[in-house]
Amino acid sequence: MNQEDRIDQSGAWQALERHAGQMRDVHLRELFATQGRFARFSREAAGLMLDLSKQRWSDETFALLLALAREAEVPQAITRLLDGERVNRSEDRPALHTALRLPESARLEVEGEDLVPAVHATLAQMQRMVDKLHAGQWRGATGKAISDVVNLGVGGSDLGPLMVTHALADYHPEGVHEVQVHFASTMDGSQLADYLSRLNPETTLFVLSSKSFTTIDTLSNARTARDWLYARLVCSRSDAGNGAAAEIDRALVMRQHFIGVSASPDKMSEWGIAAANQLEFWEWVGGRYSLWGAIGLPIALVVGMDNFRALLDGAHAMDRHFREAPLEDNLPVLLGLAGIWNVNFLDIRAHSILPYDGRLEYFAAYLEQLEMESNGKSVTNDGQVTPYSTCPVLWGQLGPNAQHAFYQLLHQGTQPVECDFIAPMRRYDRVEDDATRAHLKAQHRLTLANCFAQSRLLMLGDDAIDEDGPRPSHKRYRGNQPSTTLLLERLSPATLGALIALYEHKVFVQATIWGINPFDQWGVELGKQIAGETEQILSSHVGLERMDDSSRGLIEALWAAERKAES
Amino acid sequence: MNQEDRIDQSGAWQALERHAGQMRDVHLRELFATQGRFARFSREAAGLMLDLSKQRWSDETFALLLALAREAEVPQAITRLLDGERVNRSEDRPALHTALRLPESARLEVEGEDLVPAVHATLAQMQRMVDKLHAGQWRGATGKAISDVVNLGVGGSDLGPLMVTHALADYHPEGVHEVQVHFASTMDGSQLADYLSRLNPETTLFVLSSKSFTTIDTLSNARTARDWLYARLVCSRSDAGNGAAAEIDRALVMRQHFIGVSASPDKMSEWGIAAANQLEFWEWVGGRYSLWGAIGLPIALVVGMDNFRALLDGAHAMDRHFREAPLEDNLPVLLGLAGIWNVNFLDIRAHSILPYDGRLEYFAAYLEQLEMESNGKSVTNDGQVTPYSTCPVLWGQLGPNAQHAFYQLLHQGTQPVECDFIAPMRRYDRVEDDATRAHLKAQHRLTLANCFAQSRLLMLGDDAIDEDGPRPSHKRYRGNQPSTTLLLERLSPATLGALIALYEHKVFVQATIWGINPFDQWGVELGKQIAGETEQILSSHVGLERMDDSSRGLIEALWAAERKAES
Repeated sequence: MNQEDRIDQSGAWQALERHAGQMRDVHLRELFATQGRFARFSREAAGLMLDLSKQRWSDETFALLLALAREAEVPQAITRLLDGERVNRSEDRPALHTALRLPESARLEVEGEDLVPAVHATLAQMQRMVDKLHAGQWRGATGKAISDVVNLGVGGSDLGPLMVTHALADYHPEGVHEVQVHFASTMDGSQLADYLSRLNPETTLFVLSSKSFTTIDTLSNARTARDWLYARLVCSRSDAGNGAAAEIDRALVMRQHFIGVSASPDKMSEWGIAAANQLEFWEWVGGRYSLWGAIGLPIALVVGMDNFRALLDGAHAMDRHFREAPLEDNLPVLLGLAGIWNVNFLDIRAHSILPYDGRLEYFAAYLEQLEMESNGKSVTNDGQVTPYSTCPVLWGQLGPNAQHAFYQLLHQGTQPVECDFIAPMRRYDRVEDDATRAHLKAQHRLTLANCFAQSRLLMLGDDAIDEDGPRPSHKRYRGNQPSTTLLLERLSPATLGALIALYEHKVFVQATIWGINPFDQWGVELGKQIAGETEQILSSHVGLERMDDSSRGLIEALWAAERKAES
Repeated sequence: MNQEDRIDQSGAWQALERHAGQMRDVHLRELFATQGRFARFSREAAGLMLDLSKQRWSDETFALLLALAREAEVPQAITRLLDGERVNRSEDRPALHTALRLPESARLEVEGEDLVPAVHATLAQMQRMVDKLHAGQWRGATGKAISDVVNLGVGGSDLGPLMVTHALADYHPEGVHEVQVHFASTMDGSQLADYLSRLNPETTLFVLSSKSFTTIDTLSNARTARDWLYARLVCSRSDAGNGAAAEIDRALVMRQHFIGVSASPDKMSEWGIAAANQLEFWEWVGGRYSLWGAIGLPIALVVGMDNFRALLDGAHAMDRHFREAPLEDNLPVLLGLAGIWNVNFLDIRAHSILPYDGRLEYFAAYLEQLEMESNGKSVTNDGQVTPYSTCPVLWGQLGPNAQHAFYQLLHQGTQPVECDFIAPMRRYDRVEDDATRAHLKAQHRLTLANCFAQSRLLMLGDDAIDEDGPRPSHKRYRGNQPSTTLLLERLSPATLGALIALYEHKVFVQATIWGINPFDQWGVELGKQIAGETEQILSSHVGLERMDDSSRGLIEALWAAERKAES
């Protein structure tokens, strides 16, 4: 790509820049003076309703952004993604998370091979594992049924399953053997140490999830867990003097207490994962896009395979919409364009994710990874440094809680922020007890009222209420913070699948326009290497002189603390 | 204040602006070319070590920032704060969270009254409650000892206790009756509904925490909880036909199952909280600064009163340091100045909080409230709109996990971000089992290695390692992201107290320089009012025509979904 081919040199981009010059001083309340914005700027698909009318844009902006998407060849890029072309250019491979949610009847031939049979073979293998655990037939080394599963994984091998199992906690299948699912991700062992102090080694199974199976965070936790099991199961039983039980050896512990999920079967075998307990996925699935397959095992354990398949179907419905809907009605495209408008033309560098449903507690953390790891890039596919902003800083919190925390800054601070409000319309219909249901439904209605009220106030500022005379300036609200509202019919496996897929594709649309690769993550590689070198220095006390002055000071402080503790 | 008195019109500010013009293009690696930065820019106090050498500043910057602090009269402001003057000007009252951690022997006369006796009377009352619960002597209506306590609160009545109880989970007192502490904050009832399905009403006690005792989120949850207890304790016992037990009435349930914490005893009584179960605090304690007193009851329940008092002592040590240390050695002042430099002169509008210790899981969420609710303001104490930035967007995550999530953006994105790295030097010394301790100590060392490596890489970029030949541009790291490293000797009640107080005072220093009031939160008031009006419309179906086009569209979509569900 020559510099002239860069998107900011295109006619569409420059038209937007000129247009932004006029729009920057237009307040949202002025835009709402013309009627019919909701009808013009809201769309529905796959059980989701997207209201973009509170974006700081006009019909002209909208048309210019669609022209930008065409100029950046977004339609062609969508086809290339879904057809399995090598869109991950720096790693020279396709990005095929969408293949993980194709129905069994579909065909997707990529470079001569139909991927669908292998995808569904993995789902069938997951189904067998889940069925066995839910039947109480998966037994630990001493013969007791497994009652606790601990997922050891980090990043994509943690956040996706963690987020979805919380979001779908109401979809627990009836009448199955109870299996509690836990998550341990932190490298420092904090969470794991807590579980080890509470769980029974005889009935605990660990799922090691790591695409490369070299992630040191996860393997550190896994070693600690394995030795904990060995110490408690192998030794104590042989000491017991009971003939049959004394047969418990390390291989039996590995076979009954570990499942591996990885794209590297060799490394799983090397670590000792039994062949029958290996769930495989593929290099063409990025870690942060991987909850749809084997990495989703903890989800399937919590909600059952039927609900897991409904989650896939919901995502697939969004995939079809993404491929088929015209640009101006295409939810991921429109959500992506709203972000581009805010970041690149209104200079809004922060984006807040605000779900109004406690079950979506981890949704913001999930999107932080999805968006910032995908699009936190500053080099185009052709190696040019982007002179324009890419991914903004994303953060969030449950909306009602954030109202008591950082909404102050949204309403009266100096930072412009784009907000996404997310809520289900229906909830608590199936609570059995009448009085409790009535209470909870009222709480849900109150929550929706807050959701609508806050986006209105962010938009209008003081104008949201009838003034009762002039107010002092510290009680004034400037408004004009743009927001998106996303309503789900209800929070179900299908709508959640569609919601996640919507954001995945939004990220792809933005990456396409910015000319960057959303599927690599070179920004994490060097850190791993330097951490390894630093760990060497910390443990060997050799090599400190190679470090900068600050690192030397910190490490010397640590050594001094160690000497003090040991003296 | 005239415009000429505004801080950005001061000589110190303008000198910094001129100086920033030279510094903006200086890379951190160039600054580290001169030796001795660690010695010049690191300080210790109250068990904390603060390394500011990786800020993008020089000796000259440092001197100019200190001059700015003097020009803004920071030393005088510190004295006013700690002496109990009415620093919360818009609400015309002092902000006396520091009084909550004064030792019993101290005196603090504010407007003619010594506050210390009342503070310690409340601590004594908390001690009696905790002792009773820890002795298994606090019994539910049916005579069984309370085993579960659910804190109902949101914002400051939730985040502080939630954060600290997680951080100090290792400090559980030995040999006491086991009481599990839970937190339910979300207005939509998600967390509460989950607890109600799992907990035994006979042995569950609710703590209602709300400064005003009018917070609708908390009162909604409280009503649901109360009716759940009534339905299960009052009715079922009278049905049982057991003479003695049939005496259980609503008053007994209230007396044995509810504690109230508020600044409004009248409202507590009105709601039915028994007088003996009311813990009071004062209007001069802001919600987000309130964990140090009665709001800290869940903390005291988890760690015991001795550890709770150690937490207070640690904070008090930081208070003394804040009052006594000269500006150039004053940790909160220096931390605050680093932030001012980044936001106002280097235009770095985002700040990430990255603890390298799983126990600090909620620390970033806690600081999000503390900083953004305190300093997310744009009007000075004299009613002028600030033409300069105030509080940046703060967000964070456990550092090792964030390495697998959003560090990509920190290393290779386009957004400049200031980062705070926080870690304890010593850990796991007291794990009993030898092998597990060795494993966990190795995991801690690995975690520290990652902490040091990441701040080094953010600073130096590619220069952090020896190049093995040129790399493609997508593998390059630009570095130059400024960071602070905070090391704690270990994570203990005392150092945690000092750490929290450090950030509280940092916020005050920045507010002083920006000329804003960190102790009010007018930006949350209007939202409450509009949410009430919106809730009226949702339930009555009257008044929709008063709404803007977007709100109308959303509400009509909701009603359509309701009709569909009911048909």
